Amino acid sequence: MWYKHRFRVRYQETDGMGIVYHANYLTWFEIGRTEMIRSLGLEYRSLEERGLLLPVLEAEAKYRNPARYDNLIAVYTRIESLSSVRLEFAYEIRRISAADSETGGGIANESFSQVEIPQGELLATGFTRHAWMSKEWKPIRLNREAPEVYRFLDDHYHGKKG
Amino acid sequence: MWYKHRFRVRYQETDGMGIVYHANYLTWFEIGRTEMIRSLGLEYRSLEERGLLLPVLEAEAKYRNPARYDNLIAVYTRIESLSSVRLEFAYEIRRISAADSETGGGIANESFSQVEIPQGELLATGFTRHAWMSKEWKPIRLNREAPEVYRFLDDHYHGKKG
Amino acid sequence: MWYKHRFRVRYQETDGMGIVYHANYLTWFEIGRTEMIRSLGLEYRSLEERGLLLPVLEAEAKYRNPARYDNLIAVYTRIESLSSVRLEFAYEIRRISAADSETGGGIANESFSQVEIPQGELLATGFTRHAWMSKEWKPIRLNREAPEVYRFLDDHYHGKKG
Amino acid sequence: MWYKHRFRVRYQETDGMGIVYHANYLTWFEIGRTEMIRSLGLEYRSLEERGLLLPVLEAEAKYRNPARYDNLIAVYTRIESLSSVRLEFAYEIRRISAADSETGGGIANESFSQVEIPQGELLATGFTRHAWMSKEWKPIRLNREAPEVYRFLDDHYHGKKG
Repeated sequence: MWYKHRFRVRYQETDGMGIVYHANYLTWFEIGRTEMIRSLGLEYRSLEERGLLLPVLEAEAKYRNPARYDNLIAVYTRIESLSSVRLEFAYEIRRISAADSETGGGIANESFSQVEIPQGELLATGFTRHAWMSKEWKPIRLNREAPEVYRFLDDHYHGKKG
Repeated sequence: MWYKHRFRVRYQETDGMGIVYHANYLTWFEIGRTEMIRSLGLEYRSLEERGLLLPVLEAEAKYRNPARYDNLIAVYTRIESLSSVRLEFAYEIRRISAADSETGGGIANESFSQVEIPQGELLATGFTRHAWMSKEWKPIRLNREAPEVYRFLDDHYHGKKG
Repeated sequence: MWYKHRFRVRYQETDGMGIVYHANYLTWFEIGRTEMIRSLGLEYRSLEERGLLLPVLEAEAKYRNPARYDNLIAVYTRIESLSSVRLEFAYEIRRISAADSETGGGIANESFSQVEIPQGELLATGFTRHAWMSKEWKPIRLNREAPEVYRFLDDHYHGKKG
Repeated sequence: MWYKHRFRVRYQETDGMGIVYHANYLTWFEIGRTEMIRSLGLEYRSLEERGLLLPVLEAEAKYRNPARYDNLIAVYTRIESLSSVRLEFAYEIRRISAADSETGGGIANESFSQVEIPQGELLATGFTRHAWMSKEWKPIRLNREAPEVYRFLDDHYHGKKG
């Protein structure tokens, strides 16, 4: 299952080629995983306040078609892999029409929906790998430091597959 | 009347002080005026495709309280002044609660509402001044180049006051 | 006296109009004041490590001519006003030629020079107002919390005028 | 051989974790390849003015250690692969000391040097794959559209290995 979150391309995100600057897709991936986690009932902000950081170890993007100013974008996110020390997400960035975007309802930047098959024109795919770290920037095992968060993600992850 | 548009603070927008980097408020003002214009039934993108550019001549922001990661933000926008060659906008950036944000309904990043009195904790106020320019970067008179756009904005502007 | 610091426009800084996105000038002002302070022998980073924050209260930019990708830019910075609680900077952003940029010598992003009359084509002027704050985000009096930093800036500021 | 280019971390590039936001490394890679191409005697800007675009098809970054505000950074760039339709670059991002940074001399943001073994603390490695495209966003063969540019890059690329 993919989690879908929608937003519009900002003028600030375009570059001199008239398309979205490629590095911004990594910011969009971040929005995707934040909103996915929120939709599961967690807040990344609260995790961070508890001292659980989730920095990016690796990021990858493949660009198919350029996004342009004012396009309606859907970022689709799912957990690819989960262990007590690592978390991996996959992403699809798609251009959708206003009609597509109505379907999910919900409020500004909060709206999400769970879908099996991403809709819209594929613009890019991506992947990020993360490690759980303490505020002192030391690797931690999530199942020891925050077992309920680990179980929560694990249930979701296996639920997704099972 | 103010036009209200809501979104969430992105991690990318924060800085080493743990607050939103001050230059991002200018990007938020841009979102505010884009969405205000859209809510009037125009699209800045279409204007640009017709060769009507609206670059920023002057921008100003006053910061009262810092915005933080994941805050729900409302940008309130209104036209301050309009002539055939100039357009000025005023802005208020406010932190709102999820409850506030429900009231307007609508879809992701599309939702707006018109309000007389901005709600939420005031974070910043701002102002931008713009000139209408051609693709060749020459000043143009909007009432000659695109009289229907001018009349549209003018009607709205006077309607607001009248 | 103005402090001059030079750099090149990044592709990432341009927008769909083919010019530098206006909010980036505020980032350039930040670079200007950081490098000015460094050239005086202080480091903003060290001040922050000591718990002296200098957030922006107000920022203003006036745009004359657009900067474009790969342009050589000089940001000229000077202290406009100094008290125990406030600090104000003025800025000029100018486009320079490679010839201009040779004159100052120095190393990458470290080079600066002090000049009486800014050179190059004027692109924008700006102004920022700051307050000294503690890590707890409370206003502080610099002459009490860090008298040697205050005296340092004050000597420089009056030297400039005297 | 690696091409080295140096700059300082901007405050704007940091995030709420107090480190450089991960997407900014892609911008740094862009600076690396731009300055490498310039050091070869070409300007990406001129290529673009001739209608030769080089959009990113794929980007990848692996993060080892975080960069922090005001760090002196060296981006090391080299061509990994070259054909008439594709160009691939590899990157290393390293933290250097002011002493390291003096060695190359040169002017602000222009300085570069060619080195066999990158120096400094490794922060990240990266890779980007590009295609040559026309202004109409159609793939082009560089050896047909701009044979002298192709030969130039090819000579350099084989010289590097030969």
